[in-house]
Amino acid sequence: MWRLHQFPLCPFSRKLRLLMGEKGIPFELWRENPWEGTEDFLALNPAGRTPVLHDPDKRVTLCDSQAICEYFEETVERSPMINGTATGRAEIRRLVALFDENFYFDVTAPLLHERMKKRLVLRQPPDSKALREAMKMAHGHLDYIDWLIDNRPWLAGSTMSLADLAAAAQISVADYLGGIDWKGHEQTLGWYSVFKSRPSFRPLLTERMEVIQPPKHYSEIDI
Amino acid sequence: MWRLHQFPLCPFSRKLRLLMGEKGIPFELWRENPWEGTEDFLALNPAGRTPVLHDPDKRVTLCDSQAICEYFEETVERSPMINGTATGRAEIRRLVALFDENFYFDVTAPLLHERMKKRLVLRQPPDSKALREAMKMAHGHLDYIDWLIDNRPWLAGSTMSLADLAAAAQISVADYLGGIDWKGHEQTLGWYSVFKSRPSFRPLLTERMEVIQPPKHYSEIDI
Ligand SMILES: N[C@@H](CCC(=O)N[C@@H](CS)C(=O)NCC(=O)O)C(=O)O
Ligand SMILES: N[C@@H](CCC(=O)N[C@@H](CS)C(=O)NCC(=O)O)C(=O)O
Repeated sequence: MWRLHQFPLCPFSRKLRLLMGEKGIPFELWRENPWEGTEDFLALNPAGRTPVLHDPDKRVTLCDSQAICEYFEETVERSPMINGTATGRAEIRRLVALFDENFYFDVTAPLLHERMKKRLVLRQPPDSKALREAMKMAHGHLDYIDWLIDNRPWLAGSTMSLADLAAAAQISVADYLGGIDWKGHEQTLGWYSVFKSRPSFRPLLTERMEVIQPPKHYSEIDI
Repeated sequence: MWRLHQFPLCPFSRKLRLLMGEKGIPFELWRENPWEGTEDFLALNPAGRTPVLHDPDKRVTLCDSQAICEYFEETVERSPMINGTATGRAEIRRLVALFDENFYFDVTAPLLHERMKKRLVLRQPPDSKALREAMKMAHGHLDYIDWLIDNRPWLAGSTMSLADLAAAAQISVADYLGGIDWKGHEQTLGWYSVFKSRPSFRPLLTERMEVIQPPKHYSEIDI
């Protein structure tokens, strides 16, 4: 069986868990703290990052969430998530990169640093200026997602795609860490609430990372 | 015709130029300074980043170098660059991400900041500590590329792939900016020299970005 090396608040591992859940691919979770940079983990992934997907029996190791998602798109027919015309597929991948790179860099990464890494690893208080800045950036990104939802049923077009999974993965981590103020983002909230009730999403919402507690609304389905 | 919005030292635009060159897809260069964040450019790409590929007649706009490379892999048969088995393709994409993200973050981005942005935009001297750190990181990455070349004819396996183009694109920008010390990296240098003589690479090597001059060896083919 696939073994997914990850930690609960890694947004890229969440994107992959959502995809594997939607496609019905079995896997077990394997806890990894990439920041420890252990020899064993670097032997699996020289980039030292989660997610890594490993099958010890078949001796296959896959790294990088996007490379792994493309792999499953190519090998598992069920629930295609990069589908449609070539331009439609380019639009899906554009948005995945926007969430994986820009949203992550502007919002999720600083929140993870201030609220997870400082708490669990560095034992420092969070910097409130950095938190405010991340929340401000989150507003800008949610404005753009509101606009997408105003114009399309799903983020990249008429059907659910990897763009939705990538956005939900980043947003869920930011929401867990108290970085999302939903006021004024009714469109995104509506889309996200539908998402939260999917079977692929439930395991993410019930999981907790050590002492870090999410706000009360985080795992509620009706908000 | 495709219009490629880019600036000469954008490594992601270079990856795309190499791919389009190898596949024989015609395009014209359109100079963009993404750091200016003009309204016109943000209307093309809300992420405000190069490369953007735009066809004004067909009214098609594609953003994100990887999304665009996948688009051409799907639509242009000639010179496939993400080829082979599903695991082989995952290996190509893992390496592309390693160069586009880790090499860029550790080496190319700090060099661009210190030697291009500070010179042309901020009018500040470069920080020699940051330059030394980027060059040290470059060594580590070249060690890994040496190891790949010791074990495989091309970076991802037996044929040239997008992994080679992605690596060459990042290395060429770092080399232009004086960030590569080739001593001790004979394997990578051998692979890179072969690459430099390809017709797709020639236009990159003769181009200059404003007042910034590359070291003498940069555009020489036999070194
Ligand atoms: N593009 C990569 C990003 C992976 C990534 O940045 N993972 C983070 C955790 S959220 C990590 O492992 N960081 C550890 C480090 O960079 O040292 C992917 O999609 O897999
Ligand atoms: N993953 C993106 C990265 C693009 C990127 O970071 N481009 C840089 C130039 S090298 C940029 O436009 N930066 C401007 C900014 O972030 O404001 C791609 O492959 O296209």
